[in-house]
Amino acid sequence: MSKVFFQNDYGEGAHPLVMQRLLETNMEHTCGYGLDEYSLKAAQLILDKVGNPNAQVHMMAGGTSANAIALSAFMRPFEAVVCAPTGHINVHETGAVEATGHKVLACDSENGKALPEGVRRVCLLHGDEHMVHPRVLYISQSTEIGTAYTLAELKALRAVCDEFGLYLYIDGARLGSALAAKDCDVTLRDLGELADAFYIGGTKNGLLFGEAMVVCNPALQPHFRYMIKNRGGMMAKGRLCGVMFLTAFENDDYFAWAAHANAMADIIREAMAAAGIAQFVRTTGNQVFPVLTKAQRDRLAEEFAFERWEDLDEEMCVIRFVTSWATAVEDVRRLAGALEAL
Amino acid sequence: MSKVFFQNDYGEGAHPLVMQRLLETNMEHTCGYGLDEYSLKAAQLILDKVGNPNAQVHMMAGGTSANAIALSAFMRPFEAVVCAPTGHINVHETGAVEATGHKVLACDSENGKALPEGVRRVCLLHGDEHMVHPRVLYISQSTEIGTAYTLAELKALRAVCDEFGLYLYIDGARLGSALAAKDCDVTLRDLGELADAFYIGGTKNGLLFGEAMVVCNPALQPHFRYMIKNRGGMMAKGRLCGVMFLTAFENDDYFAWAAHANAMADIIREAMAAAGIAQFVRTTGNQVFPVLTKAQRDRLAEEFAFERWEDLDEEMCVIRFVTSWATAVEDVRRLAGALEAL
Amino acid sequence: MSKVFFQNDYGEGAHPLVMQRLLETNMEHTCGYGLDEYSLKAAQLILDKVGNPNAQVHMMAGGTSANAIALSAFMRPFEAVVCAPTGHINVHETGAVEATGHKVLACDSENGKALPEGVRRVCLLHGDEHMVHPRVLYISQSTEIGTAYTLAELKALRAVCDEFGLYLYIDGARLGSALAAKDCDVTLRDLGELADAFYIGGTKNGLLFGEAMVVCNPALQPHFRYMIKNRGGMMAKGRLCGVMFLTAFENDDYFAWAAHANAMADIIREAMAAAGIAQFVRTTGNQVFPVLTKAQRDRLAEEFAFERWEDLDEEMCVIRFVTSWATAVEDVRRLAGALEAL
Amino acid sequence: MSKVFFQNDYGEGAHPLVMQRLLETNMEHTCGYGLDEYSLKAAQLILDKVGNPNAQVHMMAGGTSANAIALSAFMRPFEAVVCAPTGHINVHETGAVEATGHKVLACDSENGKALPEGVRRVCLLHGDEHMVHPRVLYISQSTEIGTAYTLAELKALRAVCDEFGLYLYIDGARLGSALAAKDCDVTLRDLGELADAFYIGGTKNGLLFGEAMVVCNPALQPHFRYMIKNRGGMMAKGRLCGVMFLTAFENDDYFAWAAHANAMADIIREAMAAAGIAQFVRTTGNQVFPVLTKAQRDRLAEEFAFERWEDLDEEMCVIRFVTSWATAVEDVRRLAGALEAL
Repeated sequence: MSKVFFQNDYGEGAHPLVMQRLLETNMEHTCGYGLDEYSLKAAQLILDKVGNPNAQVHMMAGGTSANAIALSAFMRPFEAVVCAPTGHINVHETGAVEATGHKVLACDSENGKALPEGVRRVCLLHGDEHMVHPRVLYISQSTEIGTAYTLAELKALRAVCDEFGLYLYIDGARLGSALAAKDCDVTLRDLGELADAFYIGGTKNGLLFGEAMVVCNPALQPHFRYMIKNRGGMMAKGRLCGVMFLTAFENDDYFAWAAHANAMADIIREAMAAAGIAQFVRTTGNQVFPVLTKAQRDRLAEEFAFERWEDLDEEMCVIRFVTSWATAVEDVRRLAGALEAL
Repeated sequence: MSKVFFQNDYGEGAHPLVMQRLLETNMEHTCGYGLDEYSLKAAQLILDKVGNPNAQVHMMAGGTSANAIALSAFMRPFEAVVCAPTGHINVHETGAVEATGHKVLACDSENGKALPEGVRRVCLLHGDEHMVHPRVLYISQSTEIGTAYTLAELKALRAVCDEFGLYLYIDGARLGSALAAKDCDVTLRDLGELADAFYIGGTKNGLLFGEAMVVCNPALQPHFRYMIKNRGGMMAKGRLCGVMFLTAFENDDYFAWAAHANAMADIIREAMAAAGIAQFVRTTGNQVFPVLTKAQRDRLAEEFAFERWEDLDEEMCVIRFVTSWATAVEDVRRLAGALEAL
Repeated sequence: MSKVFFQNDYGEGAHPLVMQRLLETNMEHTCGYGLDEYSLKAAQLILDKVGNPNAQVHMMAGGTSANAIALSAFMRPFEAVVCAPTGHINVHETGAVEATGHKVLACDSENGKALPEGVRRVCLLHGDEHMVHPRVLYISQSTEIGTAYTLAELKALRAVCDEFGLYLYIDGARLGSALAAKDCDVTLRDLGELADAFYIGGTKNGLLFGEAMVVCNPALQPHFRYMIKNRGGMMAKGRLCGVMFLTAFENDDYFAWAAHANAMADIIREAMAAAGIAQFVRTTGNQVFPVLTKAQRDRLAEEFAFERWEDLDEEMCVIRFVTSWATAVEDVRRLAGALEAL
Repeated sequence: MSKVFFQNDYGEGAHPLVMQRLLETNMEHTCGYGLDEYSLKAAQLILDKVGNPNAQVHMMAGGTSANAIALSAFMRPFEAVVCAPTGHINVHETGAVEATGHKVLACDSENGKALPEGVRRVCLLHGDEHMVHPRVLYISQSTEIGTAYTLAELKALRAVCDEFGLYLYIDGARLGSALAAKDCDVTLRDLGELADAFYIGGTKNGLLFGEAMVVCNPALQPHFRYMIKNRGGMMAKGRLCGVMFLTAFENDDYFAWAAHANAMADIIREAMAAAGIAQFVRTTGNQVFPVLTKAQRDRLAEEFAFERWEDLDEEMCVIRFVTSWATAVEDVRRLAGALEAL
């Protein structure tokens, strides 16, 4: 009776393995605020995967909070963060970064990805004390429209950052989906080498909540926990994040869950290809953006829950399907059938 | 082998009933950001208990975050919040309120409770535009040192607030323990009448996390959700708070859990009385502050985990025991025995 | 020996009449912080000219400060200000508005002027609590590139503001030049009717410093002086602004000075027309933007001081001449001659 | 007819020498924003007097603005500034420091002076990430109640700062009066050695406005001009401060003016001693605080303008006389006579 769910990747609770682990540890006593054994173990495990022994890991309560805390920790008051116009911090965080006092500068982008030339242009335009000073490049992996940076693209951005003295910060709300994509040539270790800081998103890949912030650059590490508390992001029962990330990473389930989401999206993409339905933007992760007639959209909407993305003209429109660790094969098959029958 | 735990009331996960409900609802699909059925139902249930149909309820991720969001929503930039010197926002939130741009003004207090005369004095001292303008009175119920305001005390503070145009905001991180205390004459309905806003703390009384903010004064309600998002406090899986608060309130278990915590603390208090051990400050809730010799403290510390509160002099000191919904009777009896044997 | 000065309109001190008045009143004793007789008289005089008896006038120390104070006084934390991409607050104030916590949203514009359709589009795009809430439209009269809004254009923007609940705020750093322009159909009284707040710039039109902020909308008036102090903009010797604005407005010299500046610029414009030199953007106020070859520019630079505005391509470029109350006719004639001889 | 003025030291314009110099340079053309020859020369002159070749000097528009800019430049978001409870930033700046996001922590003090033990206590109390991190010690020379630190006292505070990693910042709104006091053993050079930053107040000692910020610690210098602009404190006609400070310092008139103010205050102090009138707090600078009966105060108020400071009880009260470079000997003699005749 309720519609088949492709609306987003945060519509359920946590992966059953995570829930089970939370139950098992539920009555244990630990100290608070993320200094417990579970949090420390999870942090160490993530450091091992990242392969950067100088990095530090902090458990954050959510994405917007994580971004605002990290960016305000990394910048002085007159400094600004550069990102694609579609950047989550620029559009969908209700000014949370500006609320910490910093300007967000949009740069030229393609398919949701900041272009090295765009970043360079912004930096060259900001040359004196009457303008903000660009200090951080913010990118998302995957981006807000489901695309992902290749390793070569990341390296090119890193080079621009080095040229202009920018930190490279990567929002990994959907990092699992990006790294688990079939054609992805980027690894956690690459991020540990290229980024000054990045976070591994838990909320959208199997956890109840929680993002693991990896601060790679030692210059950005001092007093980071003060910043978390100062911005209201420190959880009393911090061990919850520890337990959940430990579960996600000790057998690399984090990537298995993301791979499942991607595989489900692949089935949708294949059905679209078979049915001759175009992708608005080519994606390989857990978000798919079909271009449909409005009539097709409305027919689909009777049975499936999805997001309306954008109207292209009087006739055509874009919608978004999102899959997750929780997406059932039979549900995807049903959607595939419906797409082919449109 | 590990010590018997009286360190705090956030050392475990959630009450088993809460965990069970999270499990039951885990695979359901809901929309995000607290607009789901569970959150709406929980909000309505709380409104019913509060008895103020004009109030609004918002689920918040944590206490520091809730305080900073609410206070910055209620004040203009030059306005300040008044509180006891020991107020949590004044001491233990790493300047989270100041980080939103507002001064915290300490007023005279007794036993952790702001005194009406103290509030009045601060207001009278701040009379022109070269000084901040006091706009909110912040109190905690229970206070940071475990005491609780009586109904008469709350009414007296309300009167001062009315006299000087202050909003009354109540931090209810430990509201359950305060209201469930045997001698407490304050009810949720009283708060709904007297406070402009208050929050019902979930983190320290049976939930994994979450605080239910009740905004009673209609003038403070518009755009409150924007404020939550702007300060990074809006959770994607907002329904978690909904499910947990629903569990806590649909059979009034919230107060039952708090009453259990208080009863466990009563056993400690009785043992102290029997053993002639003084309370540093007289409490009736889930925190107990014995005055011990340092030798006694050290002996206790071999078997029990508790917080060192304060050294009084060379010989004497204060420690803190905290009980919770999770405290086992046998553990308390063991502590009682140890206290009597000191 | 030193070059003839067309670099900007803040390169000298104050108009001699202003200096004389400062001298005359120099040893008088007055109270501080803008509550003296001079400030009150100047404010009243300005109110009379504006013709809005419900307005309030405050003397501000400078433009960036005035903008940041007013905008942060008018907005709640999640609210944003809309402006042309070239808006001074968006580009040339080092993030001063963001430093108060607010996002600046760029809208479509033409010739430096925000377009009603552009404002409407931004408002329509910002429809939920995951995005900032547009609350103020910021425009400059004249704009940052020397153009000026007509009365019809201002009314069209006012209509959009009314449609979306925006305040209309006008930065009048060069208001004198705009209103004194020959073809200008906008008056101070129009601004008093159309704007929620605007400021009359003194720094760039004859004063040592100082801007007169006119807050027309009574809803924006309460506690404005607290905001000035809170943001560090209240001058101890506030009477200086009072004395200077009184001098500028008691015989309408303010507009005479601006008219002089415009007339000097007209001579430049005429010479350019005679010499076939194009204007980059058509202006009628005290800024002129000739399009030159780089060789022409370099030749001029030997004798005249001006600003390099922009390179158009390998060969052509734009420069800026600015005139002021202090520009001497002989200097302009010399420039005119040089332009015609290029 | 108007009362003899002892109300404050910012009730007139500028010293006649300053006005003359402003007149002489009024029609010169210079570049803006404090990068002109006058500002650079004045800065160099001040550096010479301070004797710290590694320091930098910036011209600031006013005291509150200078404090907020410097303190927010020196601290990260979770850091706090320590000061005496009577500290200007703590009481009389409408929360300008908190508006930049930082907590002000009051420490124990005596006669308006922060005590080393008080600073130490505050630092020891703030030991973990749940509390703000003390980072700057703010003191005023002279203090808000007219007292001044001795060299030994400054060295003792410097030692505490070194012990706890605090910067020492000195608000010099009345620095002239402090250093010119007969019994003062502190020099500009001492400040250049002991302070990380301090400002030399112009507003209250002969200038129309302006404070010269001396940033001694090289670690605090980078990008300071960005901070000035970001907080709205950069004046377009920055050369005004340059011209004024140059006038004040090229013949050391700054100290001569302050010495005059102090000498005038000495006459008041002598008259009080002769008349047996107590000082509320012993001062040697340009502020005097007599303890009078309310009847005496009211009698004086008929002829003299002064500030009411504080009521001590039903009968007694404290008032404040302030002298300045502009105070006339005959006016002081008249006051002395009146005091002796009380």
